[in-house]
Amino acid sequence: MSTTAFLLAQGDELLTGQTVDTNSGWLAEKLHELGVTVQEVRVVGDDPAAIAAAIDHACRSAKVVICTGGLGPTSDDHTAAAAAAALNEDLVLFEDELAHIAGLFRRFGRPMSKANEKQAWMPASARALRNDWGTAPGFALQHHGAVACFVPGVPREMKALWKHRIVPLLAERLEAPSRTRLLFRCLGIAESVLEERMSPLARPGWTIGFRTRLPENQVKVYVDQDLDLEDARAEVLGVLGTSCFGVDCGPVEAVIGDLLIARGETVATAESCTGGQISAALTSVPGSSTYFIEGACLYANEAKVRVASVDPSSLAEHGAVSEAVARQLAQGIRARAGTTWGLGTTGIAGPGGGSKEKPVGTVHLALTGPVHTWHRQIALWGSRERVTRMATGAALDLFRRALQGRLPPPSS
Amino acid sequence: MSTTAFLLAQGDELLTGQTVDTNSGWLAEKLHELGVTVQEVRVVGDDPAAIAAAIDHACRSAKVVICTGGLGPTSDDHTAAAAAAALNEDLVLFEDELAHIAGLFRRFGRPMSKANEKQAWMPASARALRNDWGTAPGFALQHHGAVACFVPGVPREMKALWKHRIVPLLAERLEAPSRTRLLFRCLGIAESVLEERMSPLARPGWTIGFRTRLPENQVKVYVDQDLDLEDARAEVLGVLGTSCFGVDCGPVEAVIGDLLIARGETVATAESCTGGQISAALTSVPGSSTYFIEGACLYANEAKVRVASVDPSSLAEHGAVSEAVARQLAQGIRARAGTTWGLGTTGIAGPGGGSKEKPVGTVHLALTGPVHTWHRQIALWGSRERVTRMATGAALDLFRRALQGRLPPPSS
Repeated sequence: MSTTAFLLAQGDELLTGQTVDTNSGWLAEKLHELGVTVQEVRVVGDDPAAIAAAIDHACRSAKVVICTGGLGPTSDDHTAAAAAAALNEDLVLFEDELAHIAGLFRRFGRPMSKANEKQAWMPASARALRNDWGTAPGFALQHHGAVACFVPGVPREMKALWKHRIVPLLAERLEAPSRTRLLFRCLGIAESVLEERMSPLARPGWTIGFRTRLPENQVKVYVDQDLDLEDARAEVLGVLGTSCFGVDCGPVEAVIGDLLIARGETVATAESCTGGQISAALTSVPGSSTYFIEGACLYANEAKVRVASVDPSSLAEHGAVSEAVARQLAQGIRARAGTTWGLGTTGIAGPGGGSKEKPVGTVHLALTGPVHTWHRQIALWGSRERVTRMATGAALDLFRRALQGRLPPPSS
Repeated sequence: MSTTAFLLAQGDELLTGQTVDTNSGWLAEKLHELGVTVQEVRVVGDDPAAIAAAIDHACRSAKVVICTGGLGPTSDDHTAAAAAAALNEDLVLFEDELAHIAGLFRRFGRPMSKANEKQAWMPASARALRNDWGTAPGFALQHHGAVACFVPGVPREMKALWKHRIVPLLAERLEAPSRTRLLFRCLGIAESVLEERMSPLARPGWTIGFRTRLPENQVKVYVDQDLDLEDARAEVLGVLGTSCFGVDCGPVEAVIGDLLIARGETVATAESCTGGQISAALTSVPGSSTYFIEGACLYANEAKVRVASVDPSSLAEHGAVSEAVARQLAQGIRARAGTTWGLGTTGIAGPGGGSKEKPVGTVHLALTGPVHTWHRQIALWGSRERVTRMATGAALDLFRRALQGRLPPPSS
């Protein structure tokens, strides 16, 4: 029987839909990785009695309670008082925390208000969780045999306090983390196919999960600590094949960047339907200026001709959305920028502009390098946003497969 | 005292963090707009006894209960059985729903399994909520004086059932929707300043909410139906000033697109630090090919010179991140593409590349049109992702202000 946890999120803004509670899902995943089973999540409003009752219930139900929100300076922040009420304790002033908060205000040259002082008042038996990322300190206490941790609801502060304050605190109480997570990041494979391939691998000691963040599909495998991790990794990679672009790695654009840097190579892009999304992805990687030379978003045909030397007769004969134009975009931008690689896209993003021969979602991709030029025609469905996002993913997938040596030479 | 609601989300995947519960936040906002107060949200796992207890508690606590998830065909979908247990009823086969599900499978040419048949079994006193968007029907029932609606957890199906099944059902019980929402979309103003400006406007009959989706800040005002909406709109616009780019409108790139189409004007971009994000945003708008001619992402200095005719001596004298280069990027791309407007960005996105004189986050923006060239230097903080996103927002904000006639002529 694993340790149980109860998550409590607090704030009227969560009950009116002004803010979506993303903290609980994030904490649930982190606790799961530590081998802790989350029993229940509750979201309550800014009502002191309801918060106190929920704290009391949570501490009776589970061994670990994490409460987010309600620690701010304003009059609708009731959590510290509610926790004190649940424990039948007084709130007391924690001088060290007050000095720390005052120091923060001095550092930023802002006056400290009475309201901020309130943040240093905590239940008498609490242990302060120093917040170095904001003005609201967290705290931990024990109640009904549970350890309850209270942290601010601002995700950035919550995550920092989780990592630097709560995890060390829990480590004193929990057995060593009992699971290790392997994250397999995949492109160019449908979630249903992934599930089909993974299902024969199910076994005791493994938990297999899937997450789709289009265009990417991820497989998460939690492996019990007493099983061999390298065996698990090899076995999963065996069934995922070339669709997996990395394990526990960054996004595909970072994988591409690492490969380009290792090879001392460069890239330029000529995008039509993807509208700059490929260059935005490639340049999102720190240090990308060493290999990303130039991106051209060539919406007008005139610009395709002028910038990427697309042949006007190809445009006339085949149309802008064609294999010939995709190839010329890739080759033209590579020649102009003098790069190792050139990537070109052209397609019909929709919602307008489709025809019977070339429906919305028709996309041509081309990648050209020192030796070969590859072309792919793909048919996508959905909104303009989905079509352009999926086309961007397909182009990056084509590129990383070439760099990873997983792309056979083109037949033509 | 307004009607109260209780939201119940169900599924182990919500407690392990595999899936984030976005349904509850969405439903909370919709209920709030109907004038219903959400009292609490609970997330429980695939445990029949826990689900039954939660249903019973929810129906005792609130007048409206909405339960999402657990209606699928698999063995871990327990919600119908749990609801029957909570009501002390049997599950019965709803023949109409079975016929409807069978019809869906026939239509898609897929065999229907025994497991799918299970989805037509519901508590005896339930009223089926026909699902035309998936195979799992929802249902509604009454318990302890509350009306409880059960819908699948797939967001697309949940939203369709909300709109077409639950809202009509609630309309029988609730007074007419009592609030209208006005959404004010703002750029170039901090959330704290927005709150300061809005707070004197607080009054009975208005609910004011804020949402930040950087770089944008939104103000939502819910106005009671018996108050004058036009007065409210005018009063809020008065305090928001030029920071508000539209009311109940699309994103800023769509507002820009509408203005360009109305004026018959065109634009080209030359981006350095923003890496193609501006062209990606502008081309995300359907029909943008009529006004977006060309975007250039000019990371290498050589490309800045070659493509946008940036003067090499300016690069040598002022560096790539400078007012002179931003102006030349905007003017050069405008001249080359022959557009009405040219937009240029250059900056230090980080995390590396900063210096004492030009720290990470230093960004120069320039906009050039038929008459004027405007320049802005901004200082941003945070991650590479944040800096580039905020710089993109600031550039689009500069552009829409010019198009909306809210930008005074530059002093130089």
